[in-house]
This record gives sequence, C-alpha cells and structure tokens, in this order.
Amino acid sequence: MNTKKYRVGEGGKLKLSSYKTDETGKGSEAEALARAEERQPKLAALQERLYAEAKQSLLIVLQARDAGGKDGTVKHVLFGLNPQGVVVTSFKAPTPLELAHDFLWRVHAHAPAAGMMAVFNRSHYEDVLVTRVHGLIDQQTTQARYEHIRAFEALLSSRGTRIVKLYLHISKDEQKERLQDRLDDPDKTWKFNLGDLKERDLWDDYTLAYQDALSATSSKQAPWYVIPADHKWFRNELIGQILLDTLEDMNPQFPEADFDPAKVEIR
Amino acid sequence: MNTKKYRVGEGGKLKLSSYKTDETGKGSEAEALARAEERQPKLAALQERLYAEAKQSLLIVLQARDAGGKDGTVKHVLFGLNPQGVVVTSFKAPTPLELAHDFLWRVHAHAPAAGMMAVFNRSHYEDVLVTRVHGLIDQQTTQARYEHIRAFEALLSSRGTRIVKLYLHISKDEQKERLQDRLDDPDKTWKFNLGDLKERDLWDDYTLAYQDALSATSSKQAPWYVIPADHKWFRNELIGQILLDTLEDMNPQFPEADFDPAKVEIR
Repeated sequence: MNTKKYRVGEGGKLKLSSYKTDETGKGSEAEALARAEERQPKLAALQERLYAEAKQSLLIVLQARDAGGKDGTVKHVLFGLNPQGVVVTSFKAPTPLELAHDFLWRVHAHAPAAGMMAVFNRSHYEDVLVTRVHGLIDQQTTQARYEHIRAFEALLSSRGTRIVKLYLHISKDEQKERLQDRLDDPDKTWKFNLGDLKERDLWDDYTLAYQDALSATSSKQAPWYVIPADHKWFRNELIGQILLDTLEDMNPQFPEADFDPAKVEIR
Repeated sequence: MNTKKYRVGEGGKLKLSSYKTDETGKGSEAEALARAEERQPKLAALQERLYAEAKQSLLIVLQARDAGGKDGTVKHVLFGLNPQGVVVTSFKAPTPLELAHDFLWRVHAHAPAAGMMAVFNRSHYEDVLVTRVHGLIDQQTTQARYEHIRAFEALLSSRGTRIVKLYLHISKDEQKERLQDRLDDPDKTWKFNLGDLKERDLWDDYTLAYQDALSATSSKQAPWYVIPADHKWFRNELIGQILLDTLEDMNPQFPEADFDPAKVEIR
C-alpha cells in the first residue's frame, strides 16, 4: 500500500476538499483485518527493538474533529503493543497552571523518552485550531505559533524523535451518525459531550483552520497525513501501514554488549 | 482458580521458603494459554468500563529479583489492553532530584488517575529492599518507612485506588538459567547487567528483606501476593486471574448521562 499520497507536502497549500473521507482503497474489509493481524507481531517486534536500542523514539500526533476516531485509532492500531513502551497522553482544556506557561510547556513534558512510543491524543495543534476558531488568538499569533511549533518539532527531531502527525478526515454526515450512535447506545453516551454540537456548528471554520495549520507545519521530519476516516477499518489499515513503514525506516537494533558475554560466569 | 492461597495475610509473619517457586497448579500450559485468550477480552471490557466510569483506579505493584519476570508479566498479562488506559512506570536508581525528596515523592507523582490502570515496575518497595540489603538504612528507618508506606497506600485507597502487589517468586537456579540465557542470546544481552551478579550474591539477604517487607505491608486494602514464577505460563495465569477477580470486584459501570439523550437533536 502506497501511503505517500496521503502525506501533506512541505510548503504546499492543502485543500481538504480534494481529499476523500470515504476512501477504502482497493481491498476489502476482511482483507484489511487479515493484514492487521499479520502486522501486529511485526509492530510489536519493532517496538521491542526500539525499546532495547533506547536511542530513537516515535511520536504520533492524533488530531480530528469530535468523533473523528482518535480513541478508536489508539485502541485498534496500537493493539497488542507492550504498554511498557507506549505512553498515550490525552490533552484536555488547559488547567490554570498550564495556561500560566507558553502553549508548548505542557506538551514538551510528555515528549517520548529514547526507546519509547508516545501518542498525543489531541496536542499542541489545538492551540492553533480551537483557539483560532473561537477567536482567542489573532492571525499574527497563529502565524507565530506555527513558527514555534516548527522549531519545537525540529528540536525533538534533533534528539532522535520521529514525528508522524495524523489528521483523521471524516465527513459532516459521518460525524452526525457517530454522535447519534453515542446518544442511542447507553454504553457510549459517556463519550457524548453537549459542547460538541457547538463545535459542529463551526464545521467550516475548523476546515479552514485545519487546512492552514497542516499546510504550515507539514515537514519532512514531521509530516502530516490526511487519513480518510469515514471507514474505521480503512483508517486502521492505513495508519497501521504508516506506523510499520516508519518503524522499519527507523530500523532500530538490539544494542551490542560492552562486555564479552562468553567471559561472564554466573555462580 | 483460587488465588487466595497466594495472598499474604495481614499482620502475619511470612516465610518465603514455605512458598514453592515452581508450582503449576492442576492444569497444563496449553489449557492456561487457552484461558488467557478467553480472559483477554474480559479484561479489556472491564478496563473500558473503569476508564469510562472514571471514579476508581487500579495500581499494580511488581517486585521481583533480577530476571524475576517483571517485564514479561507486563508484556503478557497486559497484552491487548488499551494503552490509553494503562501507564507503566519503571523506577530506576533515583536521580539527584528524587533523592532530594522523601522516598515516596517520585512514586506519588505516578499514582493512577481515576479511570486508569497503573503498573509500577519496581516501586517504593525498593527503598526498603535494596537500601536495606546494602546497609544504606538501619532497622529503625526501615520500620519507619513501612509505616510511611502503609499510610501512603491508605491515602491512595481512600481516593478509590485498588492496590495489588505482586512478588514474583523464583528460585536461585531459575535466576541462573535466565541470566545465562541473556548472555547466550544476542537479542537478550541488552537486558543483562553485570551489577545483577552482585545482587545475586546477596540472595539470602534479599530473602529476609522481602519477607520482612511483605509481612509488614500486606493489608486488606493493599495485599501482597507471592506468585510462583519459575514457570512463566503459570505466573501469567495466576496474575491474569488475580487482575480479573480484582476488576470484577471493583465492578466499574458506564456512567449515566446527566441529560436526556432522546431530547438531543444533531443538525
């Protein structure tokens, strides 16, 4: 599967309307599930090497509209990985202490240590999305924040962190169905937030904010991918493949001993 | 499977020599693996409820001698859980900043938030084990620390945290085999630490320190279990069952909506 077509080019000008939300590629759902089962042990083996090597790290940034599938992505794509090597951080509305610092402060604290995989479920990008859509920051501050984000991600990259940023792209109709499902299923109603409806009314503003942010911050070292996410199984398939490709490219190795194992005697 | 016989009674005086390290119960390894596959979705479903409920939390404390199976327990028993709801913290030798605080300071920072499962891979118990065996603290300080630990665990418990403490019990011969295996297999040598051999020489001192610490700190709200751990599959079976029993007893529930879902209209 060629994942490059979903990657946002550096310095380009993205239009989300040119990306389909309901793409499913050529295969069927059953084939995708079979491939996911084959992929799982490969991801786990690469994760173990990454952890053992303890030189590089992987940061996965997940952004989406409400009900876009962030939680489901974590649950399904990371299934079967060793929890000792994965840290998922969900960023909520900032606390007073967090607001008393620059917007990258709370995020920096959760950057992955060498050997680790980190997932940001929402991220520093909220500070150029929700804040902008609600008029809390002006155009000048937005541009300045893009610059801060590029510098921040270059810093992480310089210490061996690979960054993969995923925008889960759903249609407005698909969001409606998912929100309705949360209302109809008592075991899912806890995920429903009345505030989500206000954000839904701002759909087009978010589209513009996302286009702008993704265009300004996709780089070779920290690329954005636009993931067609109406079909959960295709979303999982594509993200699983991107993670596998990325880890294979990082090519972590078990470290060699700095002593001669043959000469060690255990009494 | 009755897990109670592995539980250390409150106020008792534990002798590790009365616990077998190579026990396997009545079933076979194949049967245990089949049961683990049945257990996995049950654990995942309970974990989802715990996360959704966001009232209680679960803390699993793992202690063992070197090569006792802490990492393997995390990898196998927690397989398939949602990484968004699990945080594993590995406590290493304390940093200068950590040493400039009381011994529970760094541990407290990693206590599980409501809805979460936390695993301590090594823990505050190192501060009454390795420190004591190496003569860094005296008997009086050891006793005082037991008291501090009991108070600390009672505090966590008062906020809805269930605590399960697991001592992985292996024989000296089994440790030798596992350390030798790490020397022989180049993909495992990164786990071998020359310092482990010095700790191995102190085997009997650790036995005394463990007996003392487990006896002094096993309580109804934060019990210790002695897990026969020579056979990895039996260790996984027993711990899997303890976690399932514990989560079932906690009985987390999906929260009810504080609004009427039928009256919400999505435009």
